[in-house]
Amino acid sequence: MPRILIFGAGGVGSFYAHLLTKVGADITVVCRSNYQAVKEHGIVLDSPKYGKGVRIRPGVVSSPVDAVGDWDLILVCSKAFPGMNPSVPQLIKPAVGPKTAIALLQNGIHIEDEYQEAFPDNPIISCTIYLPVTEIYPGHVDHQEDLEILELGTFPSRPPIAHIQACLEFRNLIKTAGGEATIYSDVQLRRWIKVAVNAAWNPVCALTLSSDSLFLSSSPYADRMIKDVMLEVVAVAQAQGYSEINEGMVEEQLSRARNRVGSFGKEPSMLGDVRMGRRMEVEAIVGGVLKCAWEKKVPCPRLEVIYCLIKAVDESYARTREIAASNNWTGS
Amino acid sequence: MPRILIFGAGGVGSFYAHLLTKVGADITVVCRSNYQAVKEHGIVLDSPKYGKGVRIRPGVVSSPVDAVGDWDLILVCSKAFPGMNPSVPQLIKPAVGPKTAIALLQNGIHIEDEYQEAFPDNPIISCTIYLPVTEIYPGHVDHQEDLEILELGTFPSRPPIAHIQACLEFRNLIKTAGGEATIYSDVQLRRWIKVAVNAAWNPVCALTLSSDSLFLSSSPYADRMIKDVMLEVVAVAQAQGYSEINEGMVEEQLSRARNRVGSFGKEPSMLGDVRMGRRMEVEAIVGGVLKCAWEKKVPCPRLEVIYCLIKAVDESYARTREIAASNNWTGS
Repeated sequence: MPRILIFGAGGVGSFYAHLLTKVGADITVVCRSNYQAVKEHGIVLDSPKYGKGVRIRPGVVSSPVDAVGDWDLILVCSKAFPGMNPSVPQLIKPAVGPKTAIALLQNGIHIEDEYQEAFPDNPIISCTIYLPVTEIYPGHVDHQEDLEILELGTFPSRPPIAHIQACLEFRNLIKTAGGEATIYSDVQLRRWIKVAVNAAWNPVCALTLSSDSLFLSSSPYADRMIKDVMLEVVAVAQAQGYSEINEGMVEEQLSRARNRVGSFGKEPSMLGDVRMGRRMEVEAIVGGVLKCAWEKKVPCPRLEVIYCLIKAVDESYARTREIAASNNWTGS
Repeated sequence: MPRILIFGAGGVGSFYAHLLTKVGADITVVCRSNYQAVKEHGIVLDSPKYGKGVRIRPGVVSSPVDAVGDWDLILVCSKAFPGMNPSVPQLIKPAVGPKTAIALLQNGIHIEDEYQEAFPDNPIISCTIYLPVTEIYPGHVDHQEDLEILELGTFPSRPPIAHIQACLEFRNLIKTAGGEATIYSDVQLRRWIKVAVNAAWNPVCALTLSSDSLFLSSSPYADRMIKDVMLEVVAVAQAQGYSEINEGMVEEQLSRARNRVGSFGKEPSMLGDVRMGRRMEVEAIVGGVLKCAWEKKVPCPRLEVIYCLIKAVDESYARTREIAASNNWTGS
């Protein structure tokens, strides 16, 4: 059975630790804040599909340094912070063997670059997920609704045949466990579909401390503004060759948010992060799109403004965290 | 001696109450939160120019309803919230006689419209001020540095001769008191010079919880972004005929902020407001510029994004204040 290392045991990592346990895989999770809880009590999952209160006891380490070895598969389930130092590729290096496949279950655009640079010969599997899971307390994960979508493909989309094989094996593992997984010949299209919404809603809601519906209600111009931002992302996606991403898709996405006006609405992840003073996936979600825009010379004046603003907020919170840490206010 | 009503006795209103007391004017101030303090103890001013701990005892009312009458001059020194209900013109109506001059000591663009509509025959004096005054506690005002600039002119710039006369009289009162005041034939130019900086820095700093220098340090793109926003305001000013407002002016303004990089920098008023959960002058400072941009069909994609974001933040804080008020957490 395959030996699998899961880097990041929040909601997503814990969910797939559960799923892959079903096929008898030898699983070790790399935990940070929840290390002690998972070490002592394992990981409990509440899921409408996989049962309530199901406990597993995978191997647990606090760092990949403690998981040196030639793993068959590493799932990266942490948030994506391209440009972070040390990078995740640097952190997982001790666990990567010559044939280790690395699956990235993360949001954003251009997040694969660092992994490809660090491990040019290893299979890199790029994944988009729609999975409403939350770690409600350390080691206890709640799968809130019966939604489980995993879209995967190789990076780059035309890799050596062995990389395609690794991608197929990962898909088969998930399916054998009873889970959902669909292979796409160009998974970047799936990433662009997700980011076309995320690159606009995430920073706008975080900057305004508003859910999607509350933002739409905030002024007569808000609806047009968010649409204009999404259309900039659409133009970038189209310049990349993704003509499937168009204004109709934006309208469909917006209509869902418009239908929520009058209710509390939905809060994207970055708004949760800003409320908690946590680091936001600014580079992966907004910066990655702009990197493509600049390469293809697609003007994105609105997205650039939003990027600079959310980047400055992220830096502002980073200063606060540094001060807190230097005063020993946090235990981290 | 003239009878003068001062609407809004924060820093600016209190400062001019002091100045105009010197010429023996009969002054009444309309106080809100500091009513009790000013009623009992008067207004104390600490100023490098006008002395430390100087106390005056003007008339004090809590509403213009208590100041019914044919005042010679009303100084509006509250923040500018065009579109507010009730409007300041509605509030001061009981105090406005057929010849009462109304001087607006407020920021922004298009703030005079409501007054002209309500009082089409009264002299309206539009003023730009640079005056670092703060109410450090109720009824005690600190003039922090020896800066005192009052730029004034009629609204509109070509009014009946009686309105020009009222403007001259106001200037002369200030000068007689030993203060600074300069009449401009088109004071709107002075407003545009101030707003070209304010419309960019105010919301950007408020949205990012950063001083000007901290924002400039937040990413390699921040400098270009704030300049691009200012250049949009410049284009609107130029479309209004103000060719004096140009890229050179923007560069000069930006170089001051750049020189502050490495230090804590300056915090514009909207950042203070957002920290205190207070209402921000979004419509006066950003909305007023956009109103002109739309009239003149000048594209302002960046400023529109910033407007929608800061508007949504303002609404978000308004919801918080409403909840607080309905729970009786505030005394207001």
